[in-house]
Amino acid sequence: MANPISDSALDMIFRQARTHTAWLPRPVGDDLLRAVYDLAKLGPTSANTMPMRIVFVKSPAAKQRLKPALHGGNVEKTMAAPVTAIFADDQKFYEHIPRLFPAAPAFRDLFIGPENAERAKIHAFRNATLQAAYFIIAARALGLDCGPMSGFDNAKVDAEFFPDGRFKSNFIMNLGYGDAEKLHPRLPRLEFDEACKIM
Amino acid sequence: MANPISDSALDMIFRQARTHTAWLPRPVGDDLLRAVYDLAKLGPTSANTMPMRIVFVKSPAAKQRLKPALHGGNVEKTMAAPVTAIFADDQKFYEHIPRLFPAAPAFRDLFIGPENAERAKIHAFRNATLQAAYFIIAARALGLDCGPMSGFDNAKVDAEFFPDGRFKSNFIMNLGYGDAEKLHPRLPRLEFDEACKIM
Repeated sequence: MANPISDSALDMIFRQARTHTAWLPRPVGDDLLRAVYDLAKLGPTSANTMPMRIVFVKSPAAKQRLKPALHGGNVEKTMAAPVTAIFADDQKFYEHIPRLFPAAPAFRDLFIGPENAERAKIHAFRNATLQAAYFIIAARALGLDCGPMSGFDNAKVDAEFFPDGRFKSNFIMNLGYGDAEKLHPRLPRLEFDEACKIM
Repeated sequence: MANPISDSALDMIFRQARTHTAWLPRPVGDDLLRAVYDLAKLGPTSANTMPMRIVFVKSPAAKQRLKPALHGGNVEKTMAAPVTAIFADDQKFYEHIPRLFPAAPAFRDLFIGPENAERAKIHAFRNATLQAAYFIIAARALGLDCGPMSGFDNAKVDAEFFPDGRFKSNFIMNLGYGDAEKLHPRLPRLEFDEACKIM
């Protein structure tokens, strides 16, 4: 492999990147959302199953549909953000396996039916969450700031945006250009020796 | 924010990066594992709870302990890899909340006790998985190749490496310098209009 990427790139995707809650009045174009997805889609998932689905809530009308599901502390910033992404897990991701993982199309059958629903749910949750993290990094790499949130009512979001039950909301995330002056100091982190062990 | 990061950086973390299964005989130093973690730890998690734990299986003795849990197709490549990371979820991540999220230490109480165990499990799974994805990107950014795998027996890994039950394995991943000559063509991906909607 090549040399490590530049310090400025590491700053942008990790070291200087921060979760934002205050947004500058600068719009986010649809082309940029597509460019972020086109990077994030390349990240690895188990058997290339890529179960993440995204609804980008952008219009005032769609924002109003999302609003009742938000916990109190997340309402104002979410209404102010240029875009709010709803990350969801496709519970029937396995239907795409013959196309996405042609070497083993029968892998699909491990997930079909009520007896395999729990396995499918876990597989979708794990891999859709990996993809959402790739999306966060890709968004930062293309100059966007992110504000991920778990403080909302998943059942309300699902009823409003995914009424047929196929997609289940995972978490939501504001996207835009953050106001760096409104940031608080970064919180502490667990250090390597607290979280990791080499055997 | 600054300009988007360079094309070569995007190539390295997304566009040219691939899941590897064949490994060059080049070791991975402990310092590099620490450097990868020190980037990955900066990625966002809900209320900064960072529930990911990692065991880096590196010594031949530790590799032998992992071997019986691997599905057949994953044995050879895992035994050959310089390092195999076991990503796990700390089921008691909430004990760290007063330190990691000092603004709301009582957030911890939402996760304590059997009546909250399912909420804690979901929170740990979601956020530890986000962190594992940050780790993948950080590893690539520092020049490593990754080979993530779900094809193993989680219960066997947990019994062998986490016998007290606090940590639950999520997925495992080989780390090292991949042999690019052994790669297959990249698999297809769902395109934006198949996976995303702008409202």
